[in-house]
Amino acid sequence: MTTYILRVDCPDQAGLIHTVTGVLLRHDLNIIANSEFVDHETRRFFMRTEFAGEVDEERATAELREALPDGAKIRLTRRGNRNIVVLATREPHCPGELFIRHAFHELGAQIRAVISNHDLLEPLATQFGLPFHYISHEGVSRPEHEARIIETIDRYEPDYIVLAKYMRILSPEFVARYPARIINIHHSFLPAFIGANPYRQAFERGVKMIGATAHFVTDYLDEGPIIAQDIIPVDHTHTAADMAHAGRDVEKIVLARALRLVFEERVFLSGSRSVIL
Amino acid sequence: MTTYILRVDCPDQAGLIHTVTGVLLRHDLNIIANSEFVDHETRRFFMRTEFAGEVDEERATAELREALPDGAKIRLTRRGNRNIVVLATREPHCPGELFIRHAFHELGAQIRAVISNHDLLEPLATQFGLPFHYISHEGVSRPEHEARIIETIDRYEPDYIVLAKYMRILSPEFVARYPARIINIHHSFLPAFIGANPYRQAFERGVKMIGATAHFVTDYLDEGPIIAQDIIPVDHTHTAADMAHAGRDVEKIVLARALRLVFEERVFLSGSRSVIL
Amino acid sequence: MTTYILRVDCPDQAGLIHTVTGVLLRHDLNIIANSEFVDHETRRFFMRTEFAGEVDEERATAELREALPDGAKIRLTRRGNRNIVVLATREPHCPGELFIRHAFHELGAQIRAVISNHDLLEPLATQFGLPFHYISHEGVSRPEHEARIIETIDRYEPDYIVLAKYMRILSPEFVARYPARIINIHHSFLPAFIGANPYRQAFERGVKMIGATAHFVTDYLDEGPIIAQDIIPVDHTHTAADMAHAGRDVEKIVLARALRLVFEERVFLSGSRSVIL
Amino acid sequence: MTTYILRVDCPDQAGLIHTVTGVLLRHDLNIIANSEFVDHETRRFFMRTEFAGEVDEERATAELREALPDGAKIRLTRRGNRNIVVLATREPHCPGELFIRHAFHELGAQIRAVISNHDLLEPLATQFGLPFHYISHEGVSRPEHEARIIETIDRYEPDYIVLAKYMRILSPEFVARYPARIINIHHSFLPAFIGANPYRQAFERGVKMIGATAHFVTDYLDEGPIIAQDIIPVDHTHTAADMAHAGRDVEKIVLARALRLVFEERVFLSGSRSVIL
Repeated sequence: MTTYILRVDCPDQAGLIHTVTGVLLRHDLNIIANSEFVDHETRRFFMRTEFAGEVDEERATAELREALPDGAKIRLTRRGNRNIVVLATREPHCPGELFIRHAFHELGAQIRAVISNHDLLEPLATQFGLPFHYISHEGVSRPEHEARIIETIDRYEPDYIVLAKYMRILSPEFVARYPARIINIHHSFLPAFIGANPYRQAFERGVKMIGATAHFVTDYLDEGPIIAQDIIPVDHTHTAADMAHAGRDVEKIVLARALRLVFEERVFLSGSRSVIL
Repeated sequence: MTTYILRVDCPDQAGLIHTVTGVLLRHDLNIIANSEFVDHETRRFFMRTEFAGEVDEERATAELREALPDGAKIRLTRRGNRNIVVLATREPHCPGELFIRHAFHELGAQIRAVISNHDLLEPLATQFGLPFHYISHEGVSRPEHEARIIETIDRYEPDYIVLAKYMRILSPEFVARYPARIINIHHSFLPAFIGANPYRQAFERGVKMIGATAHFVTDYLDEGPIIAQDIIPVDHTHTAADMAHAGRDVEKIVLARALRLVFEERVFLSGSRSVIL
Repeated sequence: MTTYILRVDCPDQAGLIHTVTGVLLRHDLNIIANSEFVDHETRRFFMRTEFAGEVDEERATAELREALPDGAKIRLTRRGNRNIVVLATREPHCPGELFIRHAFHELGAQIRAVISNHDLLEPLATQFGLPFHYISHEGVSRPEHEARIIETIDRYEPDYIVLAKYMRILSPEFVARYPARIINIHHSFLPAFIGANPYRQAFERGVKMIGATAHFVTDYLDEGPIIAQDIIPVDHTHTAADMAHAGRDVEKIVLARALRLVFEERVFLSGSRSVIL
Repeated sequence: MTTYILRVDCPDQAGLIHTVTGVLLRHDLNIIANSEFVDHETRRFFMRTEFAGEVDEERATAELREALPDGAKIRLTRRGNRNIVVLATREPHCPGELFIRHAFHELGAQIRAVISNHDLLEPLATQFGLPFHYISHEGVSRPEHEARIIETIDRYEPDYIVLAKYMRILSPEFVARYPARIINIHHSFLPAFIGANPYRQAFERGVKMIGATAHFVTDYLDEGPIIAQDIIPVDHTHTAADMAHAGRDVEKIVLARALRLVFEERVFLSGSRSVIL
């Protein structure tokens, strides 16, 4: 038996859960887990249902579309590995975390390729048997650089693009091409310390905790809906470098945790916020 | 408009969510929040629905009983303050936390009375205008002591009984009288350090974190289903007394957090575990 | 035997620990605990020593001054309760936390008086037997309002002034009058959400954790050296009001934890950062 | 200039800090960081000093031995990478974490070799260029198995032996051979869930947090002095398998954090507890 994930995102109205569960019941599908949420600010309804059985995906989707309000976003997919492309620069801890989880079937996704604007991580990717594309940003314009990256990404048809400490700002055009499909890890407890060198900023501000934030990339880097955050304590004995070192452990765990939620199709966008079902 | 909380706990079968939401829909009730969970080990279904509207409570319950499997536990109550009786001994931090939240309408419950086997906390209760009953255990048998406590409790008809550092073991008969209605705070990260003097035990074991556990009291003290837990870090500079001191902050916050879940009717029992919806 | 706390803060140079411990040894004093730290950025040395014995405080201080580099700040005090004045506005949870700890000798300080620009908390202070001064800001200029507060504070000769959710901005003149003696609790994980209504800001940004920050007040509110911070997780089901509610538990615990460090004379200032020994 | 770490562990008496700093001062050594602790229960003094300069190690040690009480343990080493041997069984996450940190110079140690009673992790070790020794426990007695492991370990002369999810119990003889030199990661918040299958135990007990504990191995597995612990929240939706999955992230981070403390020579043993300076 196959396991499916149904995602519904539509304007709220009475009876939506009853409607969706009714369709599933008529198709003789067995609900494994179900969650809903109504955002009372935006008056939108979100629902994620995991069910087992055999279903004519097109017919079920059509019936749901018929039964649900206009403008409903309905997505019915099979549970299982998503395809991703990883973008990185020079820091190994986040890519390394993804590679090793991938190697032991713990990532929830297939890494189809790794793209970097430096060649430093090539041996790491290669030793894990992952295709590595070195696309330098030097000597080319930003649009040209992004065009090469896009061409490479699209060849692999990924569901999601993961920025595993990719240290270049993406253009609005790039971001718009993959709506709600780019996930970034930012090395601070956003919205504190937006921008460059957050550990230096954190050190100078004398914070007692540092954090990491995984988020969707929408218009601007460091600004999209947050998926997961975590922190660790630091103290006056930590230099900015020590903070960066300590922060790496949080970064990679927060990124992996966020990706698991995304790959299980639990994350919905509700304006500038995420809903996790 | 009134807000209601419906709780359903029954053997799992297909179509339960559809059934329950169907009844609510026919009564023209507006679901505010809804959560369900199927315990795949015990094959039981749990559902909590918060809805607004005016409902004939008896009729709705009867219809649900008709529609749901035999043995379904159905509880339909109005959202709002629960009535509680607090049992304490000598330590002020947990009772004090409850009293002050109560005074500022942050507890989610009415404290109907405070009972203690010592008179030490009488001034604290009294200054907050709470009835205080000093029922000493000295010079009376345990059954006699418990009989007096029960008599006092029952006069106030509480929904729940909160053991806010009540340091005496309750008999199985006492516990059986209030099934899933007694909540205790234990000063350790259960199941570590069951029994007396957990901070001394923790100190001697050299732990680097101490915790607190709020749980339902079922058969044995320190053994019922866990509702909430938390920890704080300690280190080698903490004596056993320092650990106890630090632990008090966790105890009172964990107790208050667990009570909030209980008073909002979010906590279900599934064998030895709790399900929190 | 008395317990003393010696604090030294001076330019770093070789042999400082040897020098200080030498003076204590000659006075036949028994070190209970000792910590030092060199800030390699500012090249300053910080040392806190707790010792027991009987000492001629003036003579020992003079000897230390002789032995240590020019510009050394030396403070030798007896361990024990500090005197404080609490400033509050309308929110009860932080003042209430301080009052109840005070009542049960867990605060590490004597609350000499409570001052508020509202009269709402008067019953709470009074029920704990604490002098309450209602000094309204209405109908008076800010300088006049602050002058009245200062006059009241100074009558009690406090060691420290605690802003327990005091919601008015203090003038630079007020702050300069009590250097490193004013402690504030800010209801966010600084430096995120500086300024008004941080929970609304946090909600709109969709954060997954909210925090609290206790800090010294130096020039500007929300800007002084951080003493303690903590966070709790939140999720999409939290409204801004729920976040504020959840945040109160962190605020009061973080404030109490910071005060304990301050009252034990563990907190030193090193530029915009704190050193906690 | 070389950086050294001096560790002193001796019966407490007056003037010890003064004595040690006096010797360092006479050798014209510059203290970078210094910490001490007196365990008032056992009346032992612990001190860790990091200093820079050039020192005749033997002479300095002899002078310290002369100046300190009888029975003082004095260890003067150069700061820098320690040599370790890693023992593992089948689970890749802890060994993988160590290998990747090692590859990027973030471990604080040289992994000289990996030993396992299964051959499953051989490709992982090999891809990181690490010598891998498959020493099966099948068909040999426990003493014989351990003798082979010891022979292999000793060939590499490691400072420490790291059990990175090595799932076999070590004999007291094995443990005694490497006193305070074996570090284990246990997949629970010790002392809860000692022994086999802690995640199953945790699931059945219905805990709301699971943890991991890194500790020295002394007499019995799961019983030595704790170095580091941490936890993560779980809830009723976690099966035992989900808990195990979530727990792996804590295990590997706690192990890495503990090893960093050990490799920086910060961990002292005081009876059944650790002192971390």
